[in-house]
Amino acid sequence: MRFLDQVRDAMHKNNSLVCVGLDPLLEQFPAHIKELDQCIFEFNKYIIDATHDLVCAYKPQAAHYHAQGAEDQLLMTIQYVQDNYPDIPVILDSKRGDIGSTADQYAKEAFVRYNADAVTINPYMGIDTVEPFTRYEDKGAVLLCRTSNPGAAAIQNLKVGEQFLYEVIAETAMKEWNNNDNVLLVVGATNPDELKRIREITGDMTFLVPGLGAQGGDVEATVKNGLNSKGEGIIVNSSRGIIYAGNDEDFAEAARNAATELRDQVNQYR
Amino acid sequence: MRFLDQVRDAMHKNNSLVCVGLDPLLEQFPAHIKELDQCIFEFNKYIIDATHDLVCAYKPQAAHYHAQGAEDQLLMTIQYVQDNYPDIPVILDSKRGDIGSTADQYAKEAFVRYNADAVTINPYMGIDTVEPFTRYEDKGAVLLCRTSNPGAAAIQNLKVGEQFLYEVIAETAMKEWNNNDNVLLVVGATNPDELKRIREITGDMTFLVPGLGAQGGDVEATVKNGLNSKGEGIIVNSSRGIIYAGNDEDFAEAARNAATELRDQVNQYR
Repeated sequence: MRFLDQVRDAMHKNNSLVCVGLDPLLEQFPAHIKELDQCIFEFNKYIIDATHDLVCAYKPQAAHYHAQGAEDQLLMTIQYVQDNYPDIPVILDSKRGDIGSTADQYAKEAFVRYNADAVTINPYMGIDTVEPFTRYEDKGAVLLCRTSNPGAAAIQNLKVGEQFLYEVIAETAMKEWNNNDNVLLVVGATNPDELKRIREITGDMTFLVPGLGAQGGDVEATVKNGLNSKGEGIIVNSSRGIIYAGNDEDFAEAARNAATELRDQVNQYR
Repeated sequence: MRFLDQVRDAMHKNNSLVCVGLDPLLEQFPAHIKELDQCIFEFNKYIIDATHDLVCAYKPQAAHYHAQGAEDQLLMTIQYVQDNYPDIPVILDSKRGDIGSTADQYAKEAFVRYNADAVTINPYMGIDTVEPFTRYEDKGAVLLCRTSNPGAAAIQNLKVGEQFLYEVIAETAMKEWNNNDNVLLVVGATNPDELKRIREITGDMTFLVPGLGAQGGDVEATVKNGLNSKGEGIIVNSSRGIIYAGNDEDFAEAARNAATELRDQVNQYR
């Protein structure tokens, strides 16, 4: 099944636009988890089991695994979702990008080695870096457009003629790079006006929207400005705000509560 | 020792501005290597032993290891250089970039897990993505500026006021992001005029220059336009043109010959 269909089905099934980011940081783990073998995978398993009926996707962030040398546990995490909750797609958040022949290798990493359903991509190197990913028609290629971090504006809001750079990326992604209809955009929740502008530019395209929760984005403005004409089109990610809602024996329950709360907050404004 | 000092010393010692890119592709390996255990590491070892006195740096490209699940052999490769040829620095070419807290993890990957001497970084997300790397004062942070791939111009040559986007990146990198004097730029050899322009903007900053060899850049124009006021300042990378110069029993010798030739061509125009 194509990634965008998969995520839409999961949105309907769980009545949720929420994606849980799986960004393991050992120093934030509950003590009883930290002492386990393969504690990253064990931590993720608890979070996934506790939230699978509340989400439309999971998004493991690659750096957190690479820093620990835990590629095996990243793979186990993705397989765990696919084996146990096959309706929930997995977005590998690794923000790859390189010349064509190297992007081929990154696409192989994401889609063959890890069998992720989608991957995030940095568009600074242009179409050569995008096409090796979009060529996998059933997979999603999620391009950085306007990111949620404070320093992003210094680059992404540079003025290119009458437009901001992020608007050029959005337009180019939609008109020139989306031939296989599997491109999505990353648009941070920290700038609702810009989210609105990107929605105007891109029609019903789907966005991955990080920046709620720990990064402080506003839920109402995000949902109202982000939804497409079908009342969908945003995958609202929260990582730290959900997975580190608690750090004790009951951390999975705390994560479930935080995910429920975010899902309900989002749904309230749909 | 600081990365930029290390690379300068290696340039002097070996009278070379050449960097060999270690981009393992199993289908290009000689048959007698492909059948070995840990053939990626074995291949790299032959290349390194055959070229260590001809280069100023090595540059393993991360995607080629990730696609194979060969992070262990990437680490072994870096350690092999450091143990056997400690004068030659290693640039991990992984083009990372993310929000601050995640960039911390990518910096940890590059500088702690792999103990690389420098890493390539995609600047599209701004200062938050750069600072976690430049904070490691002895390490090099090599920012994409004007890349060598054909599709790069559609983004990097967008006009921002009177400047091209890549010029803005070069200027911002030099004036605002280089507080620890450890920022370098990636500037492709495929556009010598742009190389010249970036040299004018950035004074004596050091560039990593890919795109000679397989990608077709012109050596004379690259060297003349790229050198800084000290007759240095460019790390000229070739990957496929050197490591796949031969694919038979004598592949290491063929690589040595190709590296010698490139070194001499470059030196001819210094």
